[in-house]
Amino acid sequence: MVKVAIDAMGGDLGPAPIIEGTLQALQEFSFKPILVGDKSKISPFVPKDRASSIEIVHSEDFIKMDEGATGALKRKDSSIYVASNLIKEGSAECVVSAGHSGATMSIATLKIGRVKGVLRPAIASHMPTVRGKNSLIVDAGANVDCKAEHLLQFALMGIEYMKCVMGIPNPSVGLLSNGEERSKGNELTKESYKLLERLENFKGNVEGANIFDGSVDVVVCDGFTGNIVLKTSEGVADAITTLLKQHIKSSTTSMLGALFMKSAFRNLKKNIDYAEYGGAPLLGIDGNVIICHGKSNAKAIKNAINQAIISSEYSLPLHILESIERFDTKEHKKEEEA
Amino acid sequence: MVKVAIDAMGGDLGPAPIIEGTLQALQEFSFKPILVGDKSKISPFVPKDRASSIEIVHSEDFIKMDEGATGALKRKDSSIYVASNLIKEGSAECVVSAGHSGATMSIATLKIGRVKGVLRPAIASHMPTVRGKNSLIVDAGANVDCKAEHLLQFALMGIEYMKCVMGIPNPSVGLLSNGEERSKGNELTKESYKLLERLENFKGNVEGANIFDGSVDVVVCDGFTGNIVLKTSEGVADAITTLLKQHIKSSTTSMLGALFMKSAFRNLKKNIDYAEYGGAPLLGIDGNVIICHGKSNAKAIKNAINQAIISSEYSLPLHILESIERFDTKEHKKEEEA
Repeated sequence: MVKVAIDAMGGDLGPAPIIEGTLQALQEFSFKPILVGDKSKISPFVPKDRASSIEIVHSEDFIKMDEGATGALKRKDSSIYVASNLIKEGSAECVVSAGHSGATMSIATLKIGRVKGVLRPAIASHMPTVRGKNSLIVDAGANVDCKAEHLLQFALMGIEYMKCVMGIPNPSVGLLSNGEERSKGNELTKESYKLLERLENFKGNVEGANIFDGSVDVVVCDGFTGNIVLKTSEGVADAITTLLKQHIKSSTTSMLGALFMKSAFRNLKKNIDYAEYGGAPLLGIDGNVIICHGKSNAKAIKNAINQAIISSEYSLPLHILESIERFDTKEHKKEEEA
Repeated sequence: MVKVAIDAMGGDLGPAPIIEGTLQALQEFSFKPILVGDKSKISPFVPKDRASSIEIVHSEDFIKMDEGATGALKRKDSSIYVASNLIKEGSAECVVSAGHSGATMSIATLKIGRVKGVLRPAIASHMPTVRGKNSLIVDAGANVDCKAEHLLQFALMGIEYMKCVMGIPNPSVGLLSNGEERSKGNELTKESYKLLERLENFKGNVEGANIFDGSVDVVVCDGFTGNIVLKTSEGVADAITTLLKQHIKSSTTSMLGALFMKSAFRNLKKNIDYAEYGGAPLLGIDGNVIICHGKSNAKAIKNAINQAIISSEYSLPLHILESIERFDTKEHKKEEEA
C-alpha cells in the first residue's frame, strides 16, 4: 500500500481541511496516510474510529507562508522537512503539502534528490480547457532563468506525467511563444524549438490562448513565464467574476437572472476550480511530491493525495528516468552517426 | 487641425468598418482624415456629402495578414507604407492602422523614425481593471529579447502616454515579475529593478493578477512576456465565455436566467472590449501611430483616431523625448557626483 506523508501544518487554513481531505481520501482510495506536524494540533481532528488507520509523525516546527525559502533548508524539525525525510529514509513514497511552496520545492529537491539525469525539477500546473480535459504547463514557476535543455526536459517530464497520471496515451507538446510560426520566439524558445522538434508529438509553437483551447496536452515554458501565465489567468478570472457581480448587483432583473443561472455558474466554477484535480506535481524529484495551493480545501487535498498515489503506483520517477535516458541515448546515437 | 492618415486596407474586415469609424470620428472630433488605399474600394463607402471633408490618397498595394513583415519593408506602394510616408513628409501627424501589426511597426519605425534617444519603440496595450480605469502594458509584443535599459524606457514612455492621452497626473509603474518581493524575478527583471527604482512613482514588482486589479497604471515587461500576457488574457476570457455558454445551453432555467442577465453581460463585455478605447499606441516613434486589432469595428477605429488626435495635440513624442533626456541628464549628474 502506498504510503503518503501529508504535511498537516503549512496551509493557510491550518490542519483542519488537510486532515478532512485525508479522511475523505481514505474513503475512496487505498493508501496509508502519515500526517506530519504538531501532534497536539492534529489529534483533535482525527476521529477515534480512524485513529488506527492514520499514523501521526510529530514535528515541532513549520514554515510560515511569509518566511523566506532559503532559511527553511536549516529548519530540520519543520513539518515539510520531516515529511520529505520520510521519503528519503524509505518510510513513504509520496509527499503532499499545502505549505510554503518555495520551501517545499527546495527541501524536497535537497532531501529526496533529483531523478538521475534531471537537470532541474519543475512544477507542473493543470490548466482548464474548453475541451474538458486539462492541459499541463511545465515549468509553472520553479526555474526563472532556463536554458533550452531544461525546457526539453520539462517536456519529457510533462509527457510522462500526462501518460502515467492522466492516462493520455501519446501526449502532444507545444512550446509557449509569441506566435505560432517557427520564426517567432525569444532567444530561449528559438533554441528550445530545435531540441523539442526531435520529439515525436511536438506541435511547434503555441500562443497563450492555446493553453485553454486544448490544442496540446503539455505546454512548455520557463518558470518565469509559467508563473506570469498562472497569475494572469487567475487575475482575469477574478476580474471577470468581480465585474460581473458588480453588474448583477446593480439591477434587480440581473439578480433574478443570476439566481436562475446558479447551476450554470456552479458548473463553470467547477471547470476552473483547482480543487477538482488537486495540486501541482513537482516533476523530476526521486519521489512523488504534490504541492497544493495554500488555501486548499478538503477536496483539493483529497485529489492531491490521489495524484500522489497514481504517480507512485505508475512509478512516475522511474518513467522520467527512462525517458531522459532514452532521449540521451538517442542523442548520442545521432551524434555518433553524424 | 490634426491630420490623421488612416490605413483603409489592411484590416481583416476590409475598408467598410474603417471608413465607418472615420465618419463616426468626424462627428465627434475635430481632425482632417486622410484615407490611404485603393481609391476604387474606398470611394463607394464615402457618402457624397462627406467627400469634401475626407482626403483619399491612392495606393495600389497592401500587406495581407498572412504575409511576412520583412518583405513588407520593400512594398513602397502599400497602404501602410504610403500612410507612414505622409508623416515623414509632414503631410500628417498620425497614422491609424488595423493592418498587419508587424509590418506597421517595422515600416513606421523605418519611415517615421524613432524619437531621439529611444533605443526600441514599444507597443503599449490597454488592459481592463476592476477599478474601471485601464492599466497599460509596455511592451506588449514589439521586442522579444530586451535589456534592462529597454524596460526603463518602456516605463518612461508608458508614463508619458498615461499622462498625455489618459490624463493621469502621476502614473505609477510596476515591473511584471513572478513575485512581489524585490528578490523575485529573472535576470532581466532583477537588472531592470535597479534602474526602475530611480523613478519617483515605481511600485516595485507586480504579479500577473495585478494587471487587472488596478494596483499600478503602467506595467513594464519585455515584449515576449507582454505578448503571452495578452494572448493568455484573451484565452481565459474566451474559455470562460465558451464554457458558460455551454452550461447555459444545457438547462432551460439557465437560458431564462441568461435572458434576464442580458444587461449585466453586455456591461461586462463593454468592460473588456478593446473597441472602447481604440488600439495600441506604438511608443517611441517620432509620430503618433495607433495599431488596431485586425478585426476592429467602427467604434474601435473611431476611438483609435481619438487616441491619435490626443497624442498629437499633447505632443506625446516631444514629451517622450524630454522624459528620456531628463532621465539621461539626471543619470549623468549622478555619475559625475559619484
